[in-house]
Amino acid sequence: MSLDPVLSRIDSDLDAAIDRLMALLRIPSISTDPAYKAECDRAADWLVADLLSIGVDARKCPTPGHPMVMGHVAGDGPHVLFYGHYDVQPVDPLTLWHRDPFDPAIEETAKGRVIRARGASDDKGQLMTFVEACRAWKAVHGTMPCRITFFFEGEEESGSPSLIPFLRENADALKADLALICDTGLFEGRVPSIMTQLRGLLGEEIVLTGPDKDLHSGHYGGLARNPITVLARVLGNLHDDKGRIQVPHFYDGVLEVSSEMRAQWEALNFDHKDFLGDVGLSIPAGEADRTPLEMIWARPTAEVNGITGGYTGDGFKTVLPSRASAKVSFRLVGDQDPHAIRENFRAWVKAQLPADVKVDFHGHGASPASRMATDHPAFEAARRALGEEWADEAAFTGAGGSIPVAGYFKTILGMDTLLAGWAKDDDQIHSPNEKYDVESFHKGIRSWARILDAISR
Amino acid sequence: MSLDPVLSRIDSDLDAAIDRLMALLRIPSISTDPAYKAECDRAADWLVADLLSIGVDARKCPTPGHPMVMGHVAGDGPHVLFYGHYDVQPVDPLTLWHRDPFDPAIEETAKGRVIRARGASDDKGQLMTFVEACRAWKAVHGTMPCRITFFFEGEEESGSPSLIPFLRENADALKADLALICDTGLFEGRVPSIMTQLRGLLGEEIVLTGPDKDLHSGHYGGLARNPITVLARVLGNLHDDKGRIQVPHFYDGVLEVSSEMRAQWEALNFDHKDFLGDVGLSIPAGEADRTPLEMIWARPTAEVNGITGGYTGDGFKTVLPSRASAKVSFRLVGDQDPHAIRENFRAWVKAQLPADVKVDFHGHGASPASRMATDHPAFEAARRALGEEWADEAAFTGAGGSIPVAGYFKTILGMDTLLAGWAKDDDQIHSPNEKYDVESFHKGIRSWARILDAISR
Repeated sequence: MSLDPVLSRIDSDLDAAIDRLMALLRIPSISTDPAYKAECDRAADWLVADLLSIGVDARKCPTPGHPMVMGHVAGDGPHVLFYGHYDVQPVDPLTLWHRDPFDPAIEETAKGRVIRARGASDDKGQLMTFVEACRAWKAVHGTMPCRITFFFEGEEESGSPSLIPFLRENADALKADLALICDTGLFEGRVPSIMTQLRGLLGEEIVLTGPDKDLHSGHYGGLARNPITVLARVLGNLHDDKGRIQVPHFYDGVLEVSSEMRAQWEALNFDHKDFLGDVGLSIPAGEADRTPLEMIWARPTAEVNGITGGYTGDGFKTVLPSRASAKVSFRLVGDQDPHAIRENFRAWVKAQLPADVKVDFHGHGASPASRMATDHPAFEAARRALGEEWADEAAFTGAGGSIPVAGYFKTILGMDTLLAGWAKDDDQIHSPNEKYDVESFHKGIRSWARILDAISR
Repeated sequence: MSLDPVLSRIDSDLDAAIDRLMALLRIPSISTDPAYKAECDRAADWLVADLLSIGVDARKCPTPGHPMVMGHVAGDGPHVLFYGHYDVQPVDPLTLWHRDPFDPAIEETAKGRVIRARGASDDKGQLMTFVEACRAWKAVHGTMPCRITFFFEGEEESGSPSLIPFLRENADALKADLALICDTGLFEGRVPSIMTQLRGLLGEEIVLTGPDKDLHSGHYGGLARNPITVLARVLGNLHDDKGRIQVPHFYDGVLEVSSEMRAQWEALNFDHKDFLGDVGLSIPAGEADRTPLEMIWARPTAEVNGITGGYTGDGFKTVLPSRASAKVSFRLVGDQDPHAIRENFRAWVKAQLPADVKVDFHGHGASPASRMATDHPAFEAARRALGEEWADEAAFTGAGGSIPVAGYFKTILGMDTLLAGWAKDDDQIHSPNEKYDVESFHKGIRSWARILDAISR
């Protein structure tokens, strides 16, 4: 089956493809907030209907949380499973958006046309690049180039609590020769990349309680324990002066970058001044003896993602608060064991608390880092195919973010995963004013058509 | 003029006095929140009308913030100025209240009848004890025992920004022989106290900005600076391991307690285990080498009253936030200079910041500590009068809270202030479920009648 008419079809159908994406973007499927449960369900329904429209035998599969979408379609080539997620991040602070995050629009910017909406890039826009490639293939050839299983999750942004049980219960339906995931980006917004190592993620929420009610800081201050002060001391101890994380045994299982990989990364000429300059910073903040690319791809982190306690409204309230809490996450690399780190972190926090401060921990997700088997022949085939679509040769890279599902595909289903995506660093995913370049969407659809063609040969 | 019929009139009029207080408590005069500006105005109007009804020449006086209420009434004795504040603290977290904070009610509790509402104790209930004493005196004798100036403020809970200019501009109208303030409590809920030293208060809000937008902690974590981590380190350094505050020159001007005062305080047999036990704590958290009463009455403090940054909603969001902020307040003693401490604190914070973290400071209030001239004859007269109303002899005490206005009365108007009040430690002022004991209200009214009588002789 010939590729060229498929690419032409993609070009002529682009406006209709954008309209379909916008319909999906209008659904506020925020998975972490229970108030949006029905909207997550509606996004799943939309995807089922869209897959059915291109001949995929699709259905919504209930879970204890948000539903999965699963679909199968026959084809001649190898069997691939494509994974994406239809849920999105919360949108606060809403005041920093210049338009309603769930009223998508095409905007003209100095860098070209963009689709502006929560989820435009992460991950609805990326997910739809694959669906649109399949739609074009089906329209032109009446069949697919590969046997394809579609698998869309609705809990990726909230720790994927239903994923592992679902993979175990549906292993027969989901197992394929290779998994494909579109949830990553172009290196420096330009170089097509296949990510071969991703950091894992461990989330911990700490809630400290001092006095059993909020107190007047005049009447009690100096005598009663302030849980914010205690929390600040603990979090202030998380890193030493050289940026090393102080939790005991934290670095167990961290692997050094191979000299081969290090050489490849050096060839990318990563400019950390530009990368940080784009977000108003200038100085690498990680371990003093590591290169910037190592800091984001190959070294573990501990970040405080949120903190709150006491009075945080306008003006001043001289309260000595009862509670203070923080959300802390760790990015993990190599063979670091998230469960061991969770235990060590909790013990380390407890050891720093005065006797009358109570602590509660709430765990959120625990996924190890992933490394892909780049000797699978599809990797090199896909890398060559991407080089034909984009101006730059494609590269194998690392990634700072976590895509835990790639690890589960390996451990539970025994599949390797090929991660490719078309997002850019300035897409502002997880932030106000998220966007996806129309170019990313268009060339992304063409890229998947090329990859499916290359894999099927 | 005889005291006894006044006390009888107070007893017979108690239910009506409670009804009047409840009408005032229904007005949500939260001064720190601009949304309640009209309600503050309404509370001032209510007080003007109530003072007019007892023959006081009262009026509302505009300021750039919330209005003052000022009133004058003739009388034979010395000239006293009575100060109270009609504004109240915010009510969050509202979910911890067991009734609407602005729908007051009498509740029967194991410790007796209480008036439940925001402001019941701080300061509407206390303020009205004085007004009701005057009302009874007027009803019985047709005149007042002293010449009285009434002065009610609406910005006490939000740093009193208009107070100093107002005192300066209206010095002639406000200057009296002695000021009276009812915004303090019974020692251990039992011993009537005249507070002779109060801590000052300095508020500082710190806003740190790292990246110029919220970032994805996977893509940037380890390389980009996290302002929450920086803020935690700074606040974690506020105290050393012995509880001493680390800001340079902070202890300049702190005075040691005199041996005479120390002996008096020891005689009070303060039980810090009960005091802390009532709020779920057990261990004194202040400087390791100080007694518990010193910690709250005679030593300066640094407390974090509020902290916020990043994602603080339900679930987890792996954001690396742009901003983090904290509200920090210092209680001051002796001759500590709030302005010098503000400058030293800001310099100390700045010195700890990485080069690409920006800081903004917002100052909130800056009042030095106050010490009263207990050799003024009214002090001993009032102390004896209080001993006749309550079961215990009255005492001269210290206080951990700040009543900056007492300091301004001294420095701007050249008046000493007699601070007496009927609040109890369990009144939960500044906290959910604030209450005022009906006994405090009733005996408080009788106490002011006795004090006015004693002063007028």
